[in-house]
Amino acid sequence: MPKKIFFTPGPSALYFTVEEHLKKALKDQVMEINHRSKQAEGYFHETVQNLKALMNIPEDYGIFFLSSATEIWERQIQNLVTEKSFHYCYGAFSNRFYDFAKKWGINAQQAASEFGQLPDTNPAIIPAGMELITMAINETSTGVSFPVEDIYAIRKAHPDALIAVDGVSGFPITDLDFTQIDSAYFSVQKCFGLPAGLGVWIVSPRAIEKAKAKAAQGLPIGTYNSIPNLLKNAEKGQTTFTANVLNIFLLSKVTDDMLEKGIDVIRREANYKAALLQHMVEEHPLLDHFVENKAHRSKTVVVANTSVDSTAIINKMAEKGLVIGNGYSAYKGKQIRIATFPTHSKEQIELLVDMLNDVRSV
Amino acid sequence: MPKKIFFTPGPSALYFTVEEHLKKALKDQVMEINHRSKQAEGYFHETVQNLKALMNIPEDYGIFFLSSATEIWERQIQNLVTEKSFHYCYGAFSNRFYDFAKKWGINAQQAASEFGQLPDTNPAIIPAGMELITMAINETSTGVSFPVEDIYAIRKAHPDALIAVDGVSGFPITDLDFTQIDSAYFSVQKCFGLPAGLGVWIVSPRAIEKAKAKAAQGLPIGTYNSIPNLLKNAEKGQTTFTANVLNIFLLSKVTDDMLEKGIDVIRREANYKAALLQHMVEEHPLLDHFVENKAHRSKTVVVANTSVDSTAIINKMAEKGLVIGNGYSAYKGKQIRIATFPTHSKEQIELLVDMLNDVRSV
Repeated sequence: MPKKIFFTPGPSALYFTVEEHLKKALKDQVMEINHRSKQAEGYFHETVQNLKALMNIPEDYGIFFLSSATEIWERQIQNLVTEKSFHYCYGAFSNRFYDFAKKWGINAQQAASEFGQLPDTNPAIIPAGMELITMAINETSTGVSFPVEDIYAIRKAHPDALIAVDGVSGFPITDLDFTQIDSAYFSVQKCFGLPAGLGVWIVSPRAIEKAKAKAAQGLPIGTYNSIPNLLKNAEKGQTTFTANVLNIFLLSKVTDDMLEKGIDVIRREANYKAALLQHMVEEHPLLDHFVENKAHRSKTVVVANTSVDSTAIINKMAEKGLVIGNGYSAYKGKQIRIATFPTHSKEQIELLVDMLNDVRSV
Repeated sequence: MPKKIFFTPGPSALYFTVEEHLKKALKDQVMEINHRSKQAEGYFHETVQNLKALMNIPEDYGIFFLSSATEIWERQIQNLVTEKSFHYCYGAFSNRFYDFAKKWGINAQQAASEFGQLPDTNPAIIPAGMELITMAINETSTGVSFPVEDIYAIRKAHPDALIAVDGVSGFPITDLDFTQIDSAYFSVQKCFGLPAGLGVWIVSPRAIEKAKAKAAQGLPIGTYNSIPNLLKNAEKGQTTFTANVLNIFLLSKVTDDMLEKGIDVIRREANYKAALLQHMVEEHPLLDHFVENKAHRSKTVVVANTSVDSTAIINKMAEKGLVIGNGYSAYKGKQIRIATFPTHSKEQIELLVDMLNDVRSV
C-alpha cells in the first residue's frame, strides 16, 4: 500500500528529509550515546544556533529543550508569574494556558472570543500591572492567527509586562520580531515535521531576570525545569533531564535543511499554498471559511465549516491516501482542518485541492 | 567503522530488535499519526498490557506515560504528598527525589548513607505519619540495590504510608511484588533499550485515591499530569499531551519481544552476566568492588573503584569499540560503571570481561 500523506495539523507529515536523518542517527548511534557527551552537546548547540539563524532570534535569548508545549505552559506560570497574568483566549490551546494559570492559583484574567474569531486586541483593555500577557500566534484548533503588529502595539502600551507567544503551529512561518517578546515556544511535530516528544522554549533576558527575581524572593519556581537550571545546563549544551536526544539531533538536521532552502523561500511557499487552499474553500460548494476576518486566517492551518458531515469528506480523501484533520472537539463532524506545513510541497497541496474540488457532494 | 557496543548505564545499547521496529514504524507511519487516533490508542493499550504481563503488575494499577523519571519525581510529590515524606538517600538519583521534595516545600526527612552503601533499612527509624516513603531499587549512580524484602518489611511496619519505588535501571530485572508498593517508575533508555524520551509511571489504587483526596481538599495536584487527568486519558488509551508516540510504539514491540523470550530467561541471564562481571572485578588487579556488601550489589549496573585513572581504562576499551561508563560526578576518574541490560548478550559480556582482563596496567 502506498504511504498516506498527512495534512493533519500535528502530528503531521514528517519533514521529507527525516527518514534519511534517521538512518544517519542509527549509523552514528545517536540513540545510544550519553546525553551529557560531547556528541550530544554538539547537537544541542547546533540546534540552538540553527534556530537563532532561522528565526532571527537575538543572540542573548536562551533556548531550552523540554518535553512538550504543554509542559512549557506550566513552566512559564511557575517561572514568570507571581500574581497576575492576562490571556487572549480564542481556541482550545490558548484557553488551556489560561486554565493552567487558574489551576496554579494565579489571578488570571482573559480577553475571550468565540472560536473562529480573535478577541479585541486593543491594548487598552489589558489592566495595568500584568506580569505576563499570552497569545497564540496560530490557534491550531480554529485556524485563527494573531497579527504580529497587534503584539507590538501591546508591547508598546505595556512595556513592563512579559509577553509570551505560543508559536506551536506558527514557527518558523510567522516572521516575529523576537526583541518585542519574552517567551516563545513550539513543539516539533507541526511545522518542523518531526516525531512528537520535544518542546522548544525561547526566553528573553528579561524573562530570565524575572525567574531569578521570583526565586530570590523565596517563591517556588519549580525544580529541574526552572529557568535558572535550564540556563545553567543549556550553557553546557545539556538538557536538565535525559531528554529526547534523537529529536534534538533530528531538529539540528531539519533546521540545517531549512537554512539551506532559505526561510524566505519557505515563507513564500507558505503564502502560495495557503492562498491555494483558501481559494479552494471560497469556491467549494460544501465548504465555508470558519475564520470570517481574512486578516486573521492562518497560513499553516486552514479551517473550513462543512455543509455536510465533515467525516464523509475526510473519508473520501482517506480513500485517496490523503489524511486531513477533523474539526477540533465540539467541531468534530462540522469542520475540516488542513495543515500546510513546510514539508508539504506545492504539488501536494495542488493535488489535495484538486481532489477536494472533485468532491461536489457526499 | 564497526558500530560501538554501549555498556553505559543509560542511555545504553538499543535493544537488539529496535532497528527492525523503527523500520516498521516508518512503514506504518507511526510518527505521523494523530496521538489520539485508534492506531495510537492501540499502541498505548498494548504497551500497558505487556508491562503488566511482564512484571506481574496487578490489573487495577494504572500505567501512565510521561516524559522522564525526573518528571515523575515531581508528579509524585505534587500528587501523593501534602506534608511529610521520607526518602532513602544513597546516590545521585535517590538524593534528587529528596531534594525535589524539599524544593516543593514538603517536610521531607531522610535516611542517608555514603555512596556505595545502603542506609539502615530498619523500618523502626521511619517516623510515624509519613505519607510517602521512597527508595531506588537500583541506584544507577552507585550500583547499590535495595533488597525487595526490606521494602516488604517497611510496608508491614508502615501500612498507611504509600511506598514509591524507583525502578529506573532495575525493571524488569528485579522481581518486585507490586501489591506491596503504590508508585513505581522507570525511563526506557535503561533495561528496555529504547531511545530516551519517555518515562513510565505505575500507580496503585491507593495512590490514585490519595491524589483524589488531596484534590478534594482543594490542594493543588498540578495540571495536565495530575493522577486524575492521567487516569482519565489512560482509560481511553491516550496521553495527557502530545507524547512520544514513537517510543510508546517501540516499547510495545520490545515488551512483545521480552514476553516471547520469557521474563524468567531474561532474569536468569541477568544473574549470570552480573556474576561474570562481579567475578572479573574481584580478580582484576586494577579494580575493586565499590559496593562492599554483596547483598546490595546491583545485577544491572556494576560499579568498580579503579586504582588508576579510570579514564585510561575507559579509553582502552573505547579503542576496541566497547563503551563503558565513568564514575558518576565526584567519582569521575575513580570508577568505572558497566551496564548489563537485557539487550547485552552473554557473549557480549564475556567479550567485555576478556577485554577488561587484558588490561593489567595502563
